[in-house]
Amino acid sequence: MQQKGGREKLRQEKEFVEEITPKSVDYSQWYIDVILKAEMMDYAPVRGFMAIRPAGYVLWEKIQELLDRRFKETGHQNAYFPLLIPQSLLQKEAEHVEGFAPEVAWVTKGGGEVLTEPLVVRPTSEAIICDFYSRWVQSWRDLPILLNQWCSVVRWEKATRPFLRTSEFLWQEGHTCHRTEKEAEEETLRMLEVYREFLESEMAIPAIAGQKTEREKFAGAQHTYCVEALMSDGRALQAGTSHNLGQHFARVFDITFLDQDDQLKYVWQTSWGASTRLIGALIMVHGDDRGLVLPPRMAPNQVVIVPILTKKDRQRVLDSVTDLKTELEGNVRVKLDDREEYSPGWKYNEWEMRGVPIRIEVGPRDLDKEQVVLVRRDTGEKEFVPRRELVDKIPQLLEQIQRDMLQKALDFREANTREGSDYEEFKKIMEEKRGFFVAPWCGDARCEEKVKEETKATIRCIAFNKKPQKDQACMVCDKQANEIVYFARAY
Amino acid sequence: MQQKGGREKLRQEKEFVEEITPKSVDYSQWYIDVILKAEMMDYAPVRGFMAIRPAGYVLWEKIQELLDRRFKETGHQNAYFPLLIPQSLLQKEAEHVEGFAPEVAWVTKGGGEVLTEPLVVRPTSEAIICDFYSRWVQSWRDLPILLNQWCSVVRWEKATRPFLRTSEFLWQEGHTCHRTEKEAEEETLRMLEVYREFLESEMAIPAIAGQKTEREKFAGAQHTYCVEALMSDGRALQAGTSHNLGQHFARVFDITFLDQDDQLKYVWQTSWGASTRLIGALIMVHGDDRGLVLPPRMAPNQVVIVPILTKKDRQRVLDSVTDLKTELEGNVRVKLDDREEYSPGWKYNEWEMRGVPIRIEVGPRDLDKEQVVLVRRDTGEKEFVPRRELVDKIPQLLEQIQRDMLQKALDFREANTREGSDYEEFKKIMEEKRGFFVAPWCGDARCEEKVKEETKATIRCIAFNKKPQKDQACMVCDKQANEIVYFARAY
Repeated sequence: MQQKGGREKLRQEKEFVEEITPKSVDYSQWYIDVILKAEMMDYAPVRGFMAIRPAGYVLWEKIQELLDRRFKETGHQNAYFPLLIPQSLLQKEAEHVEGFAPEVAWVTKGGGEVLTEPLVVRPTSEAIICDFYSRWVQSWRDLPILLNQWCSVVRWEKATRPFLRTSEFLWQEGHTCHRTEKEAEEETLRMLEVYREFLESEMAIPAIAGQKTEREKFAGAQHTYCVEALMSDGRALQAGTSHNLGQHFARVFDITFLDQDDQLKYVWQTSWGASTRLIGALIMVHGDDRGLVLPPRMAPNQVVIVPILTKKDRQRVLDSVTDLKTELEGNVRVKLDDREEYSPGWKYNEWEMRGVPIRIEVGPRDLDKEQVVLVRRDTGEKEFVPRRELVDKIPQLLEQIQRDMLQKALDFREANTREGSDYEEFKKIMEEKRGFFVAPWCGDARCEEKVKEETKATIRCIAFNKKPQKDQACMVCDKQANEIVYFARAY
Repeated sequence: MQQKGGREKLRQEKEFVEEITPKSVDYSQWYIDVILKAEMMDYAPVRGFMAIRPAGYVLWEKIQELLDRRFKETGHQNAYFPLLIPQSLLQKEAEHVEGFAPEVAWVTKGGGEVLTEPLVVRPTSEAIICDFYSRWVQSWRDLPILLNQWCSVVRWEKATRPFLRTSEFLWQEGHTCHRTEKEAEEETLRMLEVYREFLESEMAIPAIAGQKTEREKFAGAQHTYCVEALMSDGRALQAGTSHNLGQHFARVFDITFLDQDDQLKYVWQTSWGASTRLIGALIMVHGDDRGLVLPPRMAPNQVVIVPILTKKDRQRVLDSVTDLKTELEGNVRVKLDDREEYSPGWKYNEWEMRGVPIRIEVGPRDLDKEQVVLVRRDTGEKEFVPRRELVDKIPQLLEQIQRDMLQKALDFREANTREGSDYEEFKKIMEEKRGFFVAPWCGDARCEEKVKEETKATIRCIAFNKKPQKDQACMVCDKQANEIVYFARAY
């Protein structure tokens, strides 16, 4: 039996990531090293596609659980819509098809026959869902419709990066219909806040909420809101979007209802989504040169217990850590790593690389002293803790770590957010990718375009609750500014 | 603004299902009526595809929750593999491609360009997953690999029926690699038992576990096991399959490992799956002429409280049912239907149609007598229950209903299972679709084929633990029988 290419490739990869490239040396390589070494994904045979391995998928399951709970608490239900969309439906909304047509995958044959109408693999589901809504909505009594779908979507991408931009990704897409414009706008902002609060409370990622410019809004939306987070290399990442679709789709898909006043009216719609790129954000906001650092609320294992086994005290230590695991597991997600084919030192590296928030080490001497060694992943701090205090201390410490990680990310963002209107200073900072630059902008797409061409930076969002002074000039063209916007280089 | 065809269509549908067609009049129409009236699905613009509406999807969420827990308890992890599979990978295993090629959808264009190699939308994921496994498996230490995926698959079908056979459906597919043949066989049987036990304990559906014949086995498997349930019209439905893949895929995808004895060996594999057709089974096993009947463990709402509101006692009744809801909701999933635009009678019909296991009616007179009216969905039994007994009684009654529904389904199956070897009797029973016929079979595919041609019945499975007598003859050809098999007309 011959050796195979694939295996050799993997071996090389494994050696390659034996040591994680430091962030400071090559941030992109650091990211890939962490992902491969932690076995979060692997590249598919079709370029731009990937498999999400259990260590990556378990984070997606956690994201799903925590977001889904919030969607249901805000009155939404889940549903499932077809994967394949007839060309004619996608083409109905002009801006929508223009935005998505270049990047879709086409199914042209099925069941051995050439299809009379080509179908697209959904890049997003507005078109197919609106087709159903046009039949489901009849009366004001049918409103609001508050649905969400968990699924995969395909958008053919030229330059891809695991989790951040792939030709297929997993996401959720909410699609709602409302009786009034006001209700739709409230829903759009409500779901934006769900994303922002989720990122902050669960993922320990502070995010700026704001509005997209015309140029950056969703193809077919009236306007788009977004939450933008800052990665540890100073680049921004769009972590979720919420669109007020107005009546754009309702008019072309003829989604009407008989209102209480006996008038036939078009519904007002929203859609909103977040995807597996959140996993990429989690890695880049918190990770360090030793690998992943997971906030306790996201961590599949919050605590790992590593026993130090010697021939003489083996059973005594094993009994003790087994008891400890039992005591802890009512309150926290705890893993006991009692594998004997690996050394304690190897395990420390392994679990640090996988980002487990707290490590507990227990050896014979610790037993004698009725203590354990406790190590925090986020700070590396090591302390001796009396054994009897652990059951109370661990949940508190996990909360502390969660808070500290959010604060650290906030501090980083603060340190990497500048305000100003000096275009030369701006260019220098964007070249070095040093975070957000908050600047006045006239509102003209030509200024936005110029900035992108000259610096690769984009307007991430128009700030909420910030307006320019009366005499404040646009950073780019010096005309009167109409908005304060967040610029950044982005993923 | 003009009226539209879709809306008219829906109105007609709604009127059409105003009354559910009785099972005895037209079973197929009864099934469609229940599904449409309960708003479980709707037909997609592409023939054979459907949308799963919230009332249907919530059952899938429950199935996912309860199966996923069992998969994890048996050591499996979830992962996600690409939707699109290169033609060359699908073609590697000869039987596999022969089985699936006629029913796949082909992606031939992506990102505006014709693809150099066509891709299939996954009909099942053995081929793509084995490609990854060939790189992930190197040493005996990497085994077993125990993964599962929740996703949608596409298989182009000519004749479709909602939930039972659609061109796209949702499912889970487990894919495992083992060191030995014995371990793989144990896994195959373990997961079959997970399905059988899940169907019985949670869905109240008794299922026969057995082995598929060569003709009916999965394309590419060494052998296939299945669980077969009997629908209330006497037709069988395959509710889950578990395949021992042997080394068929390992050999063509070159999935090898270095064993402890330093020999390079092929892995042994399994795969197993269950799909949204389980929702169809749930409807057909338990449903009646008033609509759905949900076993308590599957029901999104286990109890619905319907207050009878009069002008005079409105607030008093509302306060009481709100208290009752609060008391119950710690232990059971309870819904209070306090909508005032619908009458109590309308609500009774509505919740019966949706299959809620227990209805509680509370009116002013009940308050005076400190009692409620309690109605069981499965039997229609109505009783007065003292208010103070409810909190203890309801959970017990739900358990009782769960047991009774299983027993009823078991009794039905017993009454519709015949043993024998009289081919004329068999033909008559199959013509009337009256359940299972357990008969001796020689093992020859020609006899199996003959039965199918003459009666449309198929061998659902070869019985476990039943062997023919030494002189027992095949029901069809009179030669020595080698197996005892379950025949039935099937979905």
